[in-house]
Amino acid sequence: MAKLKLTYFDFDGGRGEPARLALHIGKIPFEDQRISPKDWPQFRDRTPFQALPTLEVDGKVVAQSNSINRYVGKLAGLYPKDDWQALLCDEIMDAAEDMGTRIANTIDLPADDKKTAREQLAAGGITRYLEQLQARLMAAGGEYFVEQRLTVADLKIFMLVRWLRSGALDHIPKEIVERVAPQMAKHFDRVATHPDVAQYYERRKAA
Amino acid sequence: MAKLKLTYFDFDGGRGEPARLALHIGKIPFEDQRISPKDWPQFRDRTPFQALPTLEVDGKVVAQSNSINRYVGKLAGLYPKDDWQALLCDEIMDAAEDMGTRIANTIDLPADDKKTAREQLAAGGITRYLEQLQARLMAAGGEYFVEQRLTVADLKIFMLVRWLRSGALDHIPKEIVERVAPQMAKHFDRVATHPDVAQYYERRKAA
Repeated sequence: MAKLKLTYFDFDGGRGEPARLALHIGKIPFEDQRISPKDWPQFRDRTPFQALPTLEVDGKVVAQSNSINRYVGKLAGLYPKDDWQALLCDEIMDAAEDMGTRIANTIDLPADDKKTAREQLAAGGITRYLEQLQARLMAAGGEYFVEQRLTVADLKIFMLVRWLRSGALDHIPKEIVERVAPQMAKHFDRVATHPDVAQYYERRKAA
Repeated sequence: MAKLKLTYFDFDGGRGEPARLALHIGKIPFEDQRISPKDWPQFRDRTPFQALPTLEVDGKVVAQSNSINRYVGKLAGLYPKDDWQALLCDEIMDAAEDMGTRIANTIDLPADDKKTAREQLAAGGITRYLEQLQARLMAAGGEYFVEQRLTVADLKIFMLVRWLRSGALDHIPKEIVERVAPQMAKHFDRVATHPDVAQYYERRKAA
């Protein structure tokens, strides 16, 4: 078994959390390196593309969150073996990354521009994506995004929906998921109460 | 064999071209649907995430360019079967998409902001990415990005480098690839003169 080290910021969310969750669910041993905000500026230039997460596999460092999710998903049994199902899983992960990046791009805008950009996103892209993601979910049976079982696509969406519902995003109504795509809110609860996911956060809370 | 239709804008580049190339190289029959700019506004809302390319597989439409590249790469024998090599291939495609999106995000900026944003990108992100991509290429033997053979990672990079070298991007020096990552310029020429790629563009020119 390869020696793995996943490096990401020290919080339970974002681009690195799906891989952490997948590795835990798959009971794959890995070093869980967490970078604090104060160490990030000096650490930044040591990453391949000045971003986290990175995954070290037997000493070789690889970047790009969905690439990492796919790899650890295969290790953990949380990625489809069938090519068509894999495509559906990939599409969901890429769409979530796309939407997350669009939201993240507004974070450093001046206050007025941020308000305008986020209101446009909420009415436009976010609504559209949530509707389409819900349609994908329903086409797959309504419970999980592919193969009627938990995969890395569900973990990726779980983080995105948690962010949207958190209230941390000014000018994006935190009820938008419930309002636009109620089945996506149910999916969130389904993943959150999945025994392996729930156990992970119980342990994190106790740590 | 599944019935395939790839839909993208009517030009030889961008996010849809790697999949077109891969399907041609793999001799996989597909319908090559090309959308003209004037038809895009009315076509836009018929795509899942208001973007192209899309791939229709036996009547089901899927989006997200790298997800599509991976799927058609598997069909065409241009995607690694080994999980670690697949991760390396994915990382390159995601890094190229990431860089391409950052550049694309500057297209609609007002003139002054565009100049500032692109100069910052050229000196910062683009330089860094090219250096790192070149390092990846050299680590893989210097000819192709993975498995010392043509894969969808090479096709994705090929389009990105062609864009950078085209002179179409004001404020990004078109010599930046040669200057920062000369091996990436050589890689571009290698892919361009690959018999299947060269033949494809010969046929396009003749059509």
